[in-house]
Amino acid sequence: MLDRTGRYDFMAEPFHCDFSKRLSMGHLGNHLLNAADFHAIDRGFGMPQLNPEHKTWVLSRLAVEMEEMPPEYTKFSVETWIEGVMRYFTNRNFRIVDAADDNRVYGYGRSIWALIDTDTRQPLNIPDLGGGEIARYVDTERVCPIASLSRVKIGKDACRVASLPTHYSDVDVNGHINSVKYIEHVLDLFGLDWYRGHRVRRFDIAYVAESHYGDTLNFYREDVADGAVCVRITKSTPGDDGETEVCRSMIAFT
Amino acid sequence: MLDRTGRYDFMAEPFHCDFSKRLSMGHLGNHLLNAADFHAIDRGFGMPQLNPEHKTWVLSRLAVEMEEMPPEYTKFSVETWIEGVMRYFTNRNFRIVDAADDNRVYGYGRSIWALIDTDTRQPLNIPDLGGGEIARYVDTERVCPIASLSRVKIGKDACRVASLPTHYSDVDVNGHINSVKYIEHVLDLFGLDWYRGHRVRRFDIAYVAESHYGDTLNFYREDVADGAVCVRITKSTPGDDGETEVCRSMIAFT
Repeated sequence: MLDRTGRYDFMAEPFHCDFSKRLSMGHLGNHLLNAADFHAIDRGFGMPQLNPEHKTWVLSRLAVEMEEMPPEYTKFSVETWIEGVMRYFTNRNFRIVDAADDNRVYGYGRSIWALIDTDTRQPLNIPDLGGGEIARYVDTERVCPIASLSRVKIGKDACRVASLPTHYSDVDVNGHINSVKYIEHVLDLFGLDWYRGHRVRRFDIAYVAESHYGDTLNFYREDVADGAVCVRITKSTPGDDGETEVCRSMIAFT
Repeated sequence: MLDRTGRYDFMAEPFHCDFSKRLSMGHLGNHLLNAADFHAIDRGFGMPQLNPEHKTWVLSRLAVEMEEMPPEYTKFSVETWIEGVMRYFTNRNFRIVDAADDNRVYGYGRSIWALIDTDTRQPLNIPDLGGGEIARYVDTERVCPIASLSRVKIGKDACRVASLPTHYSDVDVNGHINSVKYIEHVLDLFGLDWYRGHRVRRFDIAYVAESHYGDTLNFYREDVADGAVCVRITKSTPGDDGETEVCRSMIAFT
C-alpha cells in the first residue's frame, strides 16, 4: 500500500507568475487540483479510472491560505492527503512546501469533493468506492493548521461589478467552465494598483452549480470585515430569465 | 559541452486541455517558451542569468504547426535547438513528440528572438553573448519540416471584432501583457461551435510592440485563403489618441 500522503513536484513557471514575480493563485489552484488527481490516480480512484465507469469527482469547495507564494523558478512540492470520507463528501488537504527545504512551508489548502454519476448527475456513496479502498488512505492524524472551509455568506446587497461572456478557453474537458478560471476571473476584479499594496492571504471558493459555454458570468462584490472581499458569481443563460448562483468566493488580503 | 538539442518533458494536464480533451494551443505555447528558457538556462544564457545583467530575450515571432494535439494526461517532450544566430536575431526551433514513442510526432515550432538591454530597450549583439558561447550550440543540420515564419500581412480592411480591457492575470513578471495571453485571446475570438468543426493546424504570431496593464486590446479580423484567418491586435492606451499595433497573428484551421 502506498503512503497516505502523496507528494508532487511543480515549478513556479515564469508565465504562471504575476507582476510580483511570484506564482499566481489561479495557477497554484491548478497545481493543487493536479496533485489531488495524481494522488487519486496513484491509489486507483483518479479521474481517468473513474470516468470510464461513468463516475467523476466534483470539486465542491477549495480554500488556500498562503504565508507567501513561491517565487519565479522555485521548485515546490504539493503534499496531499485525505482527511476524511463521509457518505457523499470527502475532505482532502494540501501542504505547499519548498521542494528542497522542508522547513520552508508556503501554505496549506483544504478541499471538499463529491463523487457523482456522470449520467444521472446524482451523488454516489464514496466509502463504497473500489470496494472500500479509499478508507485505507484516510489520515485523520495529520494536521492542516488553517481554518476550516468557509461557507462564504454573501448578503443580498452585494453590487454587480462585472459581467463577462464565456469563451473557448474557459471551457474544460467536460464542457463546463473550468474551476480554475473562476479563480482567475475573481482575481481579475482587482486592479494592479490594488495588488501593489495587497497580497492574497487566503482564497475560499464554493462551487454551487456548473456553468457552460454561452452563459454570461456576473460578479457581485461585497466588502466584509478585516480587508476581506466576498464575490458571488451567477450565470445568465441565453433563453432563460433570471440568474443562477454558480460560485461564492472570499478573498482575504493582507 | 551539452548537446545542442535540449529535451524537456511535460504533461497535457486536464485543466490545460480544451473541450476536445486535448492540450490547448495557448498552454502548448507556454510549454514551448518554458523549454526555450530551460534550454538557454542549461547553457548559461537563460532569463535568470541575463536579467541581473540588464539583458532579456524578447520573443519576436512564434509559429506552431501541429499534426495533432497531445491528448489529456499524455506525457510529451519538447525538443528545442538553435537553428541560427544573426547579429540581432536568433532562430530557435521545436519538435513536440510523445515522451515514450519517438515516432509519434505531434508537431513542430519555429521562433525568432531578439536580445535587448532592459534599461535602454535597444537590441544587443547576440553572437557576442557570453563571449560567443551561444554560437557553439547552433545546429544548422537538424531539419524543422514546417514552413518558415510568416510575416503575417493584414489588409487595412480587417474588421474590429472585439475590444478587451487588460486584467491582473494578463500581466507577466515584466509588467507587460503575457505573450501566451495574446494567443489565448486570439483563440477566444472563435466560438465552441467553430472548434467542433475545425482544428488549429498552424498558429503564427508576430509580436510588434509591448502592451501594458490599463491598455485596451482591439482585435481586427480578416479571413484569407484556405480557411486561414488573420488577426491584428492593437492597443489603445488611456490618454493617448489612436491605436498602436501590438501583434499580428494567423491561424490556419483544418
